[in-house]
Amino acid sequence: MHYRCRPVGLFAVFEAGLLKMRCHVVDVLQQVGGQLAEVYPSKPIYDIPGYPEIQARQLIERLMEQIASFRPGYTLGERVESVERQTDGSLVIATNDGTQIACKVLVIAAGLGCFEPRKPNIDDLSKYEGHGVSYMIKDHNVFENKKVVLAGGGDAALDWAILLADIAQKITLVHRGNTFRGSPDSAQKVVDLAKQGKMDLILESNLIAVNGQESLESVLLEGRDKSITELQADYLIPLFGLSPHLGPITNWQLSIDKSAIPVNPVDYSTDSERIYAIGDINTYPGKLNLILCGFHEAALMAQSAFKYVFPDQKLSFKYTTVYGKPTI
Amino acid sequence: MHYRCRPVGLFAVFEAGLLKMRCHVVDVLQQVGGQLAEVYPSKPIYDIPGYPEIQARQLIERLMEQIASFRPGYTLGERVESVERQTDGSLVIATNDGTQIACKVLVIAAGLGCFEPRKPNIDDLSKYEGHGVSYMIKDHNVFENKKVVLAGGGDAALDWAILLADIAQKITLVHRGNTFRGSPDSAQKVVDLAKQGKMDLILESNLIAVNGQESLESVLLEGRDKSITELQADYLIPLFGLSPHLGPITNWQLSIDKSAIPVNPVDYSTDSERIYAIGDINTYPGKLNLILCGFHEAALMAQSAFKYVFPDQKLSFKYTTVYGKPTI
Repeated sequence: MHYRCRPVGLFAVFEAGLLKMRCHVVDVLQQVGGQLAEVYPSKPIYDIPGYPEIQARQLIERLMEQIASFRPGYTLGERVESVERQTDGSLVIATNDGTQIACKVLVIAAGLGCFEPRKPNIDDLSKYEGHGVSYMIKDHNVFENKKVVLAGGGDAALDWAILLADIAQKITLVHRGNTFRGSPDSAQKVVDLAKQGKMDLILESNLIAVNGQESLESVLLEGRDKSITELQADYLIPLFGLSPHLGPITNWQLSIDKSAIPVNPVDYSTDSERIYAIGDINTYPGKLNLILCGFHEAALMAQSAFKYVFPDQKLSFKYTTVYGKPTI
Repeated sequence: MHYRCRPVGLFAVFEAGLLKMRCHVVDVLQQVGGQLAEVYPSKPIYDIPGYPEIQARQLIERLMEQIASFRPGYTLGERVESVERQTDGSLVIATNDGTQIACKVLVIAAGLGCFEPRKPNIDDLSKYEGHGVSYMIKDHNVFENKKVVLAGGGDAALDWAILLADIAQKITLVHRGNTFRGSPDSAQKVVDLAKQGKMDLILESNLIAVNGQESLESVLLEGRDKSITELQADYLIPLFGLSPHLGPITNWQLSIDKSAIPVNPVDYSTDSERIYAIGDINTYPGKLNLILCGFHEAALMAQSAFKYVFPDQKLSFKYTTVYGKPTI
């Protein structure tokens, strides 16, 4: 069995292990734990049964400990791109790096999917992606002696504006509001830098167009008073946060309903045999996007998947309280 | 909302609390925690998500801590006997002690139900119940200078045989097998006491009849070799363990299917409006009797029950990771 790897996916490794099914975990992120580990590692969660309060990072650690004895395989930092069915019904998945994995069952536990940057709605924007427009900053040295426009009102926009004020030739921060969502400390720093002339701060304004020949040359802004401003710019970096996105899953010929995969609530199977979807990525009547619901789905999925992994065996259901934890 | 109180019931108090619904917990046991706390408090459980290993007692303690701020009421040591519906659709439940509780929603989280002693299959046995035959020992002093027959091969039978050897005039332990299921230590002690003549030990024999005028006078045993033995006895105490039993729930006009309550798997509602059943006591296609499944059922139940508790309010679903834990 193969998983994309989120907390619910990790617990599915456990439930599969109880039935002596071995799992291989694939995740596009470099670390296991999905959204929990990536987006809010130290945020407290209050609704995990038996944990009055637990940090996301701790939950992932405890789950990793719980599944360790079932020795799952891991392929991290790769994204499952395609799923192909063999003549015997089993599956071969392939990642963006060309890794191929044959499996009897595929369990999609991809949370809300991939996270993609939210993009401003501007004509021809994609034409300049990689030619001046980007949505994240990997190496800030490229901005040395360049004119850079940052857009956004959150911590990412504020923090990069502060850092780039010392590096870029000219840095302009554009924000559609007049208050910042980011930390008050960072917001104050930005305001101070603007007062000192180390940065231009343009509030209550929206990006409306980008211009340039081969690469980006200028950016057009519209103020709330409808005034238009043109800024010379080598780089435009909109930092509007991340939005979830199903990604390649949409190409796997599964039904999709509003960015979720409809499943049979008896066993959380999709409409494609041997493919299950558990956790936030699935939908069924009454669905709640809670981690604890995904745990339940993992347990029922494992019971159902058993018939594909061990077609000749009869499943015998044993309580860990009575029989302890098996080994694989 | 009202609950019988098991681990799943305790977590239901939490899920209700997140939606600002206050709960009152009713349990026939003197302590919360149901089967976990009563039957195997120190047995390790391995399949609670995020707990590689936890003792039943600890799980109950953590759950009590998790729900404390929602201040549930408790009625312990009483059994819900009847449920009556009011003209407005709400319910009044009554316990065996006459306690009446009015509620908008009733959630049955009764695990496997009540536990009743398993009885040997002997004609007229019930005639002697309270007149020499009993299935548990409350006050061992009544056995002073009496002839007592204990039956069974588990820890209860062994431990009571050891204790009563010093109290009764004559103690006989009857067991159908020739090895004991109880702890090897206790079994060895029993064998030693028999060798010292302080106890009679009759193995590979079954109880087949009881005799007496007003009260018990003798017990008939049949050996594996078909030989019949008659033992004079003032008391017969079969200790064959406990078996689950739905109890008064069978009179609440709910559908019952093989000692479980069929529910709608969308919200775990029964066929009687405002009455829900969660955890081991319910059944639906794909049902697994796991605590973690009951936790999920509790969450979906709470969403559904909200409309009865706050008919004028719109439910707004909030993540504890984002909004923290509300207070009641």
